Amino acid sequence: MDISASELARELGLEHRGKDVLITGVSTLECARSGQLSFLGSAKYLAKAKESKASCLLVDASAAEVFPCALVSSNVYLDWARIVARFEPPRGDFQGVSDLACIHPEAKLGKDVTVYPFAYVGARTEVGDRVKIFPHCYVAEDCRIGADSTIYPAAVLMARTELGARVVIQPGAVVGRDGFGFAHTPAGHQRIPQIGDVRLEDDVEIGANAAVDRASLATTVVAAGTKIDNLVQIAHNVQVGRHCLFAAQVGIAGSTKIGDFVIMGGKVGVADNIAIGNQVMLGAMTGVTNSLPDGFIGAGSPQLEKGRFQRTVAVLRKLPELSKRVRELEKTVERLVQDNAAGDEKNG
Amino acid sequence: MDISASELARELGLEHRGKDVLITGVSTLECARSGQLSFLGSAKYLAKAKESKASCLLVDASAAEVFPCALVSSNVYLDWARIVARFEPPRGDFQGVSDLACIHPEAKLGKDVTVYPFAYVGARTEVGDRVKIFPHCYVAEDCRIGADSTIYPAAVLMARTELGARVVIQPGAVVGRDGFGFAHTPAGHQRIPQIGDVRLEDDVEIGANAAVDRASLATTVVAAGTKIDNLVQIAHNVQVGRHCLFAAQVGIAGSTKIGDFVIMGGKVGVADNIAIGNQVMLGAMTGVTNSLPDGFIGAGSPQLEKGRFQRTVAVLRKLPELSKRVRELEKTVERLVQDNAAGDEKNG
Amino acid sequence: MDISASELARELGLEHRGKDVLITGVSTLECARSGQLSFLGSAKYLAKAKESKASCLLVDASAAEVFPCALVSSNVYLDWARIVARFEPPRGDFQGVSDLACIHPEAKLGKDVTVYPFAYVGARTEVGDRVKIFPHCYVAEDCRIGADSTIYPAAVLMARTELGARVVIQPGAVVGRDGFGFAHTPAGHQRIPQIGDVRLEDDVEIGANAAVDRASLATTVVAAGTKIDNLVQIAHNVQVGRHCLFAAQVGIAGSTKIGDFVIMGGKVGVADNIAIGNQVMLGAMTGVTNSLPDGFIGAGSPQLEKGRFQRTVAVLRKLPELSKRVRELEKTVERLVQDNAAGDEKNG
Repeated sequence: MDISASELARELGLEHRGKDVLITGVSTLECARSGQLSFLGSAKYLAKAKESKASCLLVDASAAEVFPCALVSSNVYLDWARIVARFEPPRGDFQGVSDLACIHPEAKLGKDVTVYPFAYVGARTEVGDRVKIFPHCYVAEDCRIGADSTIYPAAVLMARTELGARVVIQPGAVVGRDGFGFAHTPAGHQRIPQIGDVRLEDDVEIGANAAVDRASLATTVVAAGTKIDNLVQIAHNVQVGRHCLFAAQVGIAGSTKIGDFVIMGGKVGVADNIAIGNQVMLGAMTGVTNSLPDGFIGAGSPQLEKGRFQRTVAVLRKLPELSKRVRELEKTVERLVQDNAAGDEKNG
Repeated sequence: MDISASELARELGLEHRGKDVLITGVSTLECARSGQLSFLGSAKYLAKAKESKASCLLVDASAAEVFPCALVSSNVYLDWARIVARFEPPRGDFQGVSDLACIHPEAKLGKDVTVYPFAYVGARTEVGDRVKIFPHCYVAEDCRIGADSTIYPAAVLMARTELGARVVIQPGAVVGRDGFGFAHTPAGHQRIPQIGDVRLEDDVEIGANAAVDRASLATTVVAAGTKIDNLVQIAHNVQVGRHCLFAAQVGIAGSTKIGDFVIMGGKVGVADNIAIGNQVMLGAMTGVTNSLPDGFIGAGSPQLEKGRFQRTVAVLRKLPELSKRVRELEKTVERLVQDNAAGDEKNG
Repeated sequence: MDISASELARELGLEHRGKDVLITGVSTLECARSGQLSFLGSAKYLAKAKESKASCLLVDASAAEVFPCALVSSNVYLDWARIVARFEPPRGDFQGVSDLACIHPEAKLGKDVTVYPFAYVGARTEVGDRVKIFPHCYVAEDCRIGADSTIYPAAVLMARTELGARVVIQPGAVVGRDGFGFAHTPAGHQRIPQIGDVRLEDDVEIGANAAVDRASLATTVVAAGTKIDNLVQIAHNVQVGRHCLFAAQVGIAGSTKIGDFVIMGGKVGVADNIAIGNQVMLGAMTGVTNSLPDGFIGAGSPQLEKGRFQRTVAVLRKLPELSKRVRELEKTVERLVQDNAAGDEKNG
């Protein structure tokens, strides 16, 4: 995969400055060895970049002249992603459809599909072109998997789950188990059958050991481009919009609707049956108890708007002192009241 | 599965009102198509129900005359569960015991058992009648699985785990791993062997990717009828009572005892070695630090009784203002003190 | 495994007092049956110990004379761990390398390795001596697993993961999935390839259904002796020190560095790109927003030092009353101000 800096620049439409070197790989500023390319994402790392052993640096125009060999970009993070992709080793050691997989005779496989040993593909399931299904995946009956999707090891797609194109299911994720719905009877909790399904649209990613539950009657949806991290819970009937980012351990309770471009930090919890607007941003560990308008930015549990959250935390950090000040005030005021009473008597 | 409204009423012991129609399926008020049955769970959805394309509605007596075709119920939610169950498609595409499963010769299988390809059943394990074991399940040695239980894909039952009848293990759940117990030594943490086991009683459900740990010495128990959602952690030696409901991402620390009919919202955390009474209800994200009496209803972290929690949140939402009011008071009181001193001097 | 109390004492270097009995097993004070050994970990359980049916007790010197048969230890918890280990039943019912496993011809297996049916071992992966790989494990290409490690069922080690000696991977854990990294573009989130890897050093344990993500460029590290419980998230580029203990459902965000001997309670969340010192202790549900020095002990979200946290909680538990007291003060002060104004007028 070795390539000269000038060729790499040409390949990616970047400008090459300084001398030409052979690039053998990519790494961080600290870890890069001679021959490797690294990147300067922010001017605050300039000193570190100057000390780096990297032979070439991806930089923005302001730093173009600083290094002996540089690739100049107008969007360093994005071009870095493209460069790293070029050096990414291929994943997996198997191609084709394994004899050790169990594929139902009524399943339909597209072109250039990979099915590893010990994968299970159920009846009437349609697998798109170039899909990869790793070992120990269970793809139940009546599923549809769009082209170029990857189902990593030990992932589970229950019956009638529908995946768009380029969907990524990380290891151990469970999509389409029955929603958690019960009718309460004197004899205990009677299961409410969950006969809906799950649809993950194009370019969705579901994290390792995450869970997306089947709808009671209709469809649980994660819309195009949304990326969901590990150990996240998406309950039944939830509708997640497009291009959202949910960090690890987020939980969305049943029937809640989330807008587009919503960003949630780790461990955020969202109550059931509410609506979160577009472009909402929630800090880690936020607990959302009610619907939020478009553009809401906040944190805390229950959630507060960002400015109010920060002022509240500032007071909380001095809460014992506040309590003491109130106690002092009470004493002083009590004295004033007594003085006034005494004065009134004296003056009366 | 099509059935006329009048026949369905007879089958379920309900009253049929209005004209008779052929029911082809069930759905929500919004999504129902002509031919489908839907339900009116609350009078607040009456307008929506009138606009629904559903051909028949399950209603309570108060709405019996509103729709052209109705099934009248004295418990709409419960009867809805029964109706949906009737229309639920069968789950799975395999029957019998697969040659591609690995079943130890000393394992004992009951009647009409289903064991999918790639399932593993260990030595001396007893599998009850009509049990279904899906692909990629690991059932270790010396387990017992009661009749009519279902072990969904990629679930793990470690050695000596005991399941009652009609237990449901959702995909990826892990039951019976060693408890997390270590003795601290200068050389690091030395594992304390965990030689107890886990018992899940009749009608228990364990969610996707949840974990129930093996006891140190005795038995971790989840009692009859309790339903546990996805990604929940039940630590070693925990005793969970009957007919509890734990929402997703709840965590119960070691050796804690939970009563019967306890309900926990999502992400509740409960400390180790405490006792939670019967019929306790805890809001989402509650952090429980000490034992709670029967009937306690609360929220917050650390937990507060519900009324106090609500009053506390109301103050918290105005905390910056409260702080400001204290500052104002201090200024005013300071002035009063000075005025009084001046007055005393003047009057003295 | 039966052994007399005196022989057991000799085997473990403990002192035997009182009569000699045949020990047939170990259990808790409550559950022990005649013939079994139990232990007295704290003087507060003395009454319970006297009532126990255990035939022999492990005790410290202060209780050596209390029971008819005792083993005397200077470190009861540690010796209890050693005794229980002696009575622990062997785990698993399979030995050798199964014909039903899928092992790449280029994989290298050490001596006395166990590979269960349905395990997958990828190309060029090196498996150390006496390693056990349970069913439904996926060990990808180019991994290294140190001697005496155990990979429990349905665990996933993605490409190039490196494990030291005596590492334990609990069921369903996922090590080495791609880190959750995206570049934000107007067209959505573009994946940043994650070409780093994961290294788990000697004696590390990873809990059931936990996730440790692959670094972007370098290596995500969990250092020697650290024990991680179920459902924990370790994001890409995180560096966890030696001999840490993380309870269940902890989450560590990307690129954060954790010191040695750090203890975290359940559900602790730690922000990205910060540094936690050595010997830090964090209570359950702590939310850490910034770097913490060595020895910091705290709780709360955002985190507070322990003493301050306790004082803050004490005020929070009386917050509605504090608010009321401020309201009372305002009324009293308002009256004082009016009185003074009236007095001034009168005296003026």
